[in-house]
Amino acid sequence: MTGNDIDKFKLISDGSITSVPGFQAGSAHCGLKNSKEKTDICIIYTPTGSVCSGIFTTNSFQAAPVIINRESLENNNKIKAIIVNSGIANACTGKKGMENALNTMKMVESSVPGVKKNEVLISSTGIIGKQLPMDKIENGIRDCTANLSIDGGNEAARAIMTTDLAEKKIAVSIAFENGKKIIIGGIAKGSGMIEPNMATMLAFIGTDAKIEKKLLDKILKKGNESSFNSISVDGCQSTNDMVLIMANGESGIKVKDEDDKTFKILSEGIFFVMKELAKKIVMDGEGATKFIEIAVRGAVNNEQAKKAARKIANSNLFKTAMFGQDLNWGRINSAIGSSDCEFDPDDVDIYLGDAKIVENGAGIEVDKALSEKSLKKRNLNFRVDLKNGSGNWTVWTSDLSFDYIKINALYHN
Amino acid sequence: MTGNDIDKFKLISDGSITSVPGFQAGSAHCGLKNSKEKTDICIIYTPTGSVCSGIFTTNSFQAAPVIINRESLENNNKIKAIIVNSGIANACTGKKGMENALNTMKMVESSVPGVKKNEVLISSTGIIGKQLPMDKIENGIRDCTANLSIDGGNEAARAIMTTDLAEKKIAVSIAFENGKKIIIGGIAKGSGMIEPNMATMLAFIGTDAKIEKKLLDKILKKGNESSFNSISVDGCQSTNDMVLIMANGESGIKVKDEDDKTFKILSEGIFFVMKELAKKIVMDGEGATKFIEIAVRGAVNNEQAKKAARKIANSNLFKTAMFGQDLNWGRINSAIGSSDCEFDPDDVDIYLGDAKIVENGAGIEVDKALSEKSLKKRNLNFRVDLKNGSGNWTVWTSDLSFDYIKINALYHN
Repeated sequence: MTGNDIDKFKLISDGSITSVPGFQAGSAHCGLKNSKEKTDICIIYTPTGSVCSGIFTTNSFQAAPVIINRESLENNNKIKAIIVNSGIANACTGKKGMENALNTMKMVESSVPGVKKNEVLISSTGIIGKQLPMDKIENGIRDCTANLSIDGGNEAARAIMTTDLAEKKIAVSIAFENGKKIIIGGIAKGSGMIEPNMATMLAFIGTDAKIEKKLLDKILKKGNESSFNSISVDGCQSTNDMVLIMANGESGIKVKDEDDKTFKILSEGIFFVMKELAKKIVMDGEGATKFIEIAVRGAVNNEQAKKAARKIANSNLFKTAMFGQDLNWGRINSAIGSSDCEFDPDDVDIYLGDAKIVENGAGIEVDKALSEKSLKKRNLNFRVDLKNGSGNWTVWTSDLSFDYIKINALYHN
Repeated sequence: MTGNDIDKFKLISDGSITSVPGFQAGSAHCGLKNSKEKTDICIIYTPTGSVCSGIFTTNSFQAAPVIINRESLENNNKIKAIIVNSGIANACTGKKGMENALNTMKMVESSVPGVKKNEVLISSTGIIGKQLPMDKIENGIRDCTANLSIDGGNEAARAIMTTDLAEKKIAVSIAFENGKKIIIGGIAKGSGMIEPNMATMLAFIGTDAKIEKKLLDKILKKGNESSFNSISVDGCQSTNDMVLIMANGESGIKVKDEDDKTFKILSEGIFFVMKELAKKIVMDGEGATKFIEIAVRGAVNNEQAKKAARKIANSNLFKTAMFGQDLNWGRINSAIGSSDCEFDPDDVDIYLGDAKIVENGAGIEVDKALSEKSLKKRNLNFRVDLKNGSGNWTVWTSDLSFDYIKINALYHN
């Protein structure tokens, strides 16, 4: 998105998925999380129904909700509601898990007026291998329904959290020349088990644009590559990842085809929302003390740039050095050197912010006071120039800290 | 190696590379490590010369010693000495680094009687990007030469350590029916930046068998796959990795060709030594509190079994769960599910020791007291059965602990 394009977008203060006309959300605590203060189930609801696209984990082990949603979207179902629980992933739960997921959808049908079970999508996040306690789910759905509100998006963003420390939400409005506007809003969760293709993350996005499924699929797929597929916290891929986008058409603004100017504008709006939600996931990475942007330039092609950038982002040694605020650039070299990306090691330059730290593959004299000051910042930007072509890619990652170990060594307890 | 084969081998108590007839080693402290108590340079020496094979890192950034040794071995040089320093990797050091490495080899020629510079191999391990202090290296080489001894192998194993906590060494003798014997001995280092292809590790192996380079190359390459290429501590690959094997022929036992029975016996001996050294590296993994064997069975082929096993071994979430002594088997499922290995998720069984913990892809009731007891042990064995073919592979890894972060966040300081 260029500077000019940004002018068209207005960030909606404290916005979320319910900033989008026609979207409601309701949340409740049903007992999947121990603390009664914390909501652990929510329903996102758009009464008139929506065209919906989804992208799901590529893990061979797929949680029951992932399997069910894939089929619902293939059948081109009109979607009115998404039911999400946190605390239990309903993954690796066999036939019983599938039954529980299908029953959850039926419960939504019974609870929310005007919704059929095949108009419901389902999503879960939390621990693998445990069955859902269906009595609690049923109570939760009843309470969520009672709480449905056009202001419910912020609480829904909290209800889908697991080890997340902060809720992730955003909304933008896009003004058209004729005075009409489209709103795009979303919520997301994700903190650990975060790795491209996809991260352990959930994202639910809504818009009031009117668009065919085929076109919406295209936008979602393209946006996903440079957002949720360009982040990594720990290189581990989940069984439950999903991004869902619902377009309810309430703005009256219709996207005709790919050549339509509106297609481009809507795409950019959705890309922006996806990228911001993705970055928020990294900022809240488990135990993260740093938000690190890694931009690889000058690769043979974008695919190779992505490989190199990901390899750095997933290097435990690089990530621990960042936690230690230690400019150990050799770990960047060794990471890209093991990435299958083609380049001449004697050509590589690396920058931290504006300061060059590696020239032609070797370290150069760096002002220690300056680099120490840079490394103390929460946000770090590394740029790697391979000087071997025009391929570029940017990924975002966090550091690897004591707290990551603490959170994950004791997740069950 | 089968049980019967093991009978032919005798472990030599406290053995190392200098357990092999005709091998000497000398070590010294030259100032690359801060503590004067710690040796940081050593020479391994076999006066009559040896046939030598090597395997090196596949990282695009290759340290100066790696580049030089590759060429020396391609030229089929007869090798009499290996000079190794720890503390500085001489990687990403440009032309100056190459000059320093070549000068180091010249210094060995000047110091050790009867050795020409092209009969010297060179190896370095430590921090990337720093130049070697050549005055210290010169003094070190002089002191190493003065200390050369047939008992020097144990100290050499210590001289090559960096973050290693324990020296790694082994020697075996193989008795032949005619009363003659072959000795194989080795030393190794490695603790972090450990990943297949290859680990951040150095290994130097000697034998008194008489063998052509072509045959020795074959044995080394094959042995490497199931030893140093089957371990992982942190998934990070180094710029300096190398395994060198020297055969000085002093036993008088000659390996004629691949059909020769002696070829098989020697191969098994070398494989054993390589595998034991590889396991010792994992046992000493940075911050490791666990030694974990992961055996994948029933894959389409060995290559796929290796992929799945490596993915588990490199999963930060699996490794932190092991540190936390938490049987979070869902993390094993999600790791193999993201490994590109073909299998049906509903077929997968997983065992911890003899206890089945996952059946047909889903968790089963596990005796909690028993599993807690198992997870308290230092050595853990996981077996994954994919039931999809006859491909098998075993890898060894460590857990991911607070100390890994501590060691690597503050490596410079």
